Amino acid sequence: MAEQSFQLYDTTLRDGAQQEGMVLTVEDKLAVARELDTLGVGFIEGGWPGAVPRDTEFFRRARTELDLKHAVLAAFGATRRPGVPAPVDPQVRALLAAETPVITLVAKSHTGHVRDALRTTLAENLSMIGGTVRHLVHAGRRVFVDAEHYFDGYQLNREYALAVVRTAAEAGAETVVLCDTNGGSLPDEVAAVVAETRALTGVQLGIHCHNDTGCAVANTMAAIDAGAVQAQGTAHGYGERCGNADLFTVIANLVLKRGREVVPLERLAGLAATGRAIAELTELPSSAAAPYIGESAFTHKAGLHASALRVDPDLYQHTRPELVGNAMRTLVSDMGGRSSIELKARELGYDVEAGSDEVARAATRVKELESNGYSFESADASFELLLREELTGAPRTRPFEVESWSVSVFGGSGAGGPHDEAVRTEATVRLSVLGRSITATGHGNGPVNALDTALHAALDPCFPALARLQLVDYRVRVLSGETGSSAAARVLISYQDGNRRWGTVGVDANTTAASWHALLDAVHYVLLDDPARPALAVGATEPLEPFRP
Amino acid sequence: MAEQSFQLYDTTLRDGAQQEGMVLTVEDKLAVARELDTLGVGFIEGGWPGAVPRDTEFFRRARTELDLKHAVLAAFGATRRPGVPAPVDPQVRALLAAETPVITLVAKSHTGHVRDALRTTLAENLSMIGGTVRHLVHAGRRVFVDAEHYFDGYQLNREYALAVVRTAAEAGAETVVLCDTNGGSLPDEVAAVVAETRALTGVQLGIHCHNDTGCAVANTMAAIDAGAVQAQGTAHGYGERCGNADLFTVIANLVLKRGREVVPLERLAGLAATGRAIAELTELPSSAAAPYIGESAFTHKAGLHASALRVDPDLYQHTRPELVGNAMRTLVSDMGGRSSIELKARELGYDVEAGSDEVARAATRVKELESNGYSFESADASFELLLREELTGAPRTRPFEVESWSVSVFGGSGAGGPHDEAVRTEATVRLSVLGRSITATGHGNGPVNALDTALHAALDPCFPALARLQLVDYRVRVLSGETGSSAAARVLISYQDGNRRWGTVGVDANTTAASWHALLDAVHYVLLDDPARPALAVGATEPLEPFRP
Repeated sequence: MAEQSFQLYDTTLRDGAQQEGMVLTVEDKLAVARELDTLGVGFIEGGWPGAVPRDTEFFRRARTELDLKHAVLAAFGATRRPGVPAPVDPQVRALLAAETPVITLVAKSHTGHVRDALRTTLAENLSMIGGTVRHLVHAGRRVFVDAEHYFDGYQLNREYALAVVRTAAEAGAETVVLCDTNGGSLPDEVAAVVAETRALTGVQLGIHCHNDTGCAVANTMAAIDAGAVQAQGTAHGYGERCGNADLFTVIANLVLKRGREVVPLERLAGLAATGRAIAELTELPSSAAAPYIGESAFTHKAGLHASALRVDPDLYQHTRPELVGNAMRTLVSDMGGRSSIELKARELGYDVEAGSDEVARAATRVKELESNGYSFESADASFELLLREELTGAPRTRPFEVESWSVSVFGGSGAGGPHDEAVRTEATVRLSVLGRSITATGHGNGPVNALDTALHAALDPCFPALARLQLVDYRVRVLSGETGSSAAARVLISYQDGNRRWGTVGVDANTTAASWHALLDAVHYVLLDDPARPALAVGATEPLEPFRP
Repeated sequence: MAEQSFQLYDTTLRDGAQQEGMVLTVEDKLAVARELDTLGVGFIEGGWPGAVPRDTEFFRRARTELDLKHAVLAAFGATRRPGVPAPVDPQVRALLAAETPVITLVAKSHTGHVRDALRTTLAENLSMIGGTVRHLVHAGRRVFVDAEHYFDGYQLNREYALAVVRTAAEAGAETVVLCDTNGGSLPDEVAAVVAETRALTGVQLGIHCHNDTGCAVANTMAAIDAGAVQAQGTAHGYGERCGNADLFTVIANLVLKRGREVVPLERLAGLAATGRAIAELTELPSSAAAPYIGESAFTHKAGLHASALRVDPDLYQHTRPELVGNAMRTLVSDMGGRSSIELKARELGYDVEAGSDEVARAATRVKELESNGYSFESADASFELLLREELTGAPRTRPFEVESWSVSVFGGSGAGGPHDEAVRTEATVRLSVLGRSITATGHGNGPVNALDTALHAALDPCFPALARLQLVDYRVRVLSGETGSSAAARVLISYQDGNRRWGTVGVDANTTAASWHALLDAVHYVLLDDPARPALAVGATEPLEPFRP
């Protein structure tokens, strides 16, 4: 059932922004906040006004530009400085000036940090906490207190850590959030400290974990089981060092594993989309292996259970991927046989049966090619070309033929430094389209790039669909490490084609020829379903048959 | 204290290889096994002989090429097929033919899987387990049994799951490993099932977890706390879907958080290096945020706590990074660079001090080059060349100069198949040795190979030492995945030079030029200490000074 009272508190925009490599503009931050609101989190911590200029600006613009439907905005800051009354402390004033309904104050709860980082007395720290909370509550704010280094502090001086919790609550803090700031705790320790703190103080508690032992999610779950009613975390587990608790995983675990509907099921189905949108905004690579929402989270490779997978996918999935907006995928690999070929074919939209001759032929060819070094896992497009050939029982119809190709690299004497201006790469391709010969050249930053440029130069005028095809990455692998001089190479090329990403594979004794095969597969793949056939461009009267099985 | 009896069982080469995008050659697998052995794991599961041809080959070569100091090799396979006696089951025979001291059998423990995947009766499944284990034990093998889908099976039919454990143990299995195959469990559930199973059967148990709830490490720790004495996991948590339990994190947690010395402290200090070496071999991006060993794991964005960090870093670290071979970094001013340069220099035999100007200069240059895409981790030779320059304070003396170089690849119309006979690669290099100009050409199976051949053709007659230099592998990495057209490339080349293996690195906007730089570094590196100077071959009267700092 829906559980509105549980507090999901997102700190992507504050603690998550400590992640190495994350640089968000104010515009980005507003967009991330909108995504989190759509997902259904209760609180969005927007930053530290006064301390970080961009965050001050964020809160200013949020007042007019951020129309949150569900979430409440929180500003993060510290307790007043030692010896300075809260009302005149500039940082505390900046917190109020952010005009958020919630203010989250970080407070020291570890005696070592009070002494060495804050350089004040234990009593003054308590007074700073009490005074600041009271001042903010008096100004009409809901106040949460993040008890920093709580778990380490609790081991060192339990009474003092508890005094911090009590002081904050007595001054009016709604929730005191126990923070594993250095991230070194394990779930049993977290559970014990949360349960004891709850029992000894009666205060409403939250949890804030980092992933330095690889247990941020488990620590968060353990704290919730022990009675914490607020979970702090970040999108994709972004954060300093090893990151924060991944709030997405925590949400999915709570709903799907604990039956606690902390976001409604219809919003949970948007989880993967939210994840992708936020990854686009942060421009940080998101992990394909991320629980629930990663591209690989419901991807199966093993051929031995492919037949059972076909009978009942639930036997091999811990939950239904559609519940979090994800989907099952299968990979074609040398561990798979006919069943995985069939699964993959169906995923690509082909209606085939595992027992059919076509699938048997495709499986045989995949196996044969794989023993020659091919790998189709990251090369969906090459696999689909092969599959179509087997489904039609004929070699693929080619919209163009290759007559010849070449590529040359010329280097000068500047052998030392990188980015040598003297290096020049030029490729020439000679193709035949509907009997007409086309020659084009291309330059680039290496043989693959130059050949790609030349192919586009030759074919884009005939096949407009190719213009959207963009090479984004490629990997070369020498297949036999011990025989450098006669090694075969496998080249995997990744393409962006509108919104889709897919790949091709080429294998050859010659590395450049391997790249050439992969480049050609990409072109043939795009042209498979392209309705703008060369006839339109080169003036033949008879349009080619669209290639359909 | 050292705890030899606890079983660390690595399955990177079998279950980890299910990771999307991972394609390991037999050579790679042997190299990964050597790294794991050095780290100190007890068992290395090498693959599934009989089912995967590459794995059969791995075990064959392992017998002569893998001299494990510490670890024991395990072959993975399934129980015999229904209705087929174990001694004649081809898959079981293949397991014995692998000749490993340990065999790990996967056994179904979930009644739904017995019915729908195995398509046999519950009784026959137990008979398959007992019969296969007995047969292998009788043949002199230590047998572990992986109870597949155990946690889900236990919820569905506890008595049957327990019967599987008892059957395996009674037949002679040393350890029964409870597998959370679909990865959907949380730590409290894992702990309860392990404790109950242990109490009800008395059998020695292991644990095998997947990360589908983000809790693989925590689940593993919970199982160990509940009495499991074998932890299965993989390097970097590689594995299907969301991955397996990260064995590196589990090891560090056990040693540093639980005081259980499952690897000796001196080996733990090699953890980060093992992680880097394996990531190079798998060519999969490793996470900077990985607990303990990630680049960012001890990285601080030096903000408000910068001064406190200087006073006492331990206040902000959950453990000492040097214990796992990692280092603290701060993102504003990198002071950690010098000590690692010093360490590396000493490792290479140079007597330097971290405080010296030379080391400071080298650190600055490494940092600058790394920000341009260089990586010296697998390029000892390029690093040593750089270091020597800084130690002498002068650009390196070059025994030859490059005048120009070029390479061309010509392809014919045979665009379809691999190993196209029509493809031809030719490189030409023009060098100057002691003022005399030398031009040589070379052919090969691609630009890198052809340039390497041409370099040898030009220089081997002058520098006999180069004849022993053999290129064994190279890797190209496009540095900016999103900008295919203007990407820079990093090329890492590995050489065999007598008994030693070492590498060089080249970075350039042009991929072929990047390879050229790496090829030249290798030649210069060999010639650093070569007493047979070109004078001997080209007849100059004045031998060049040997290059020594």
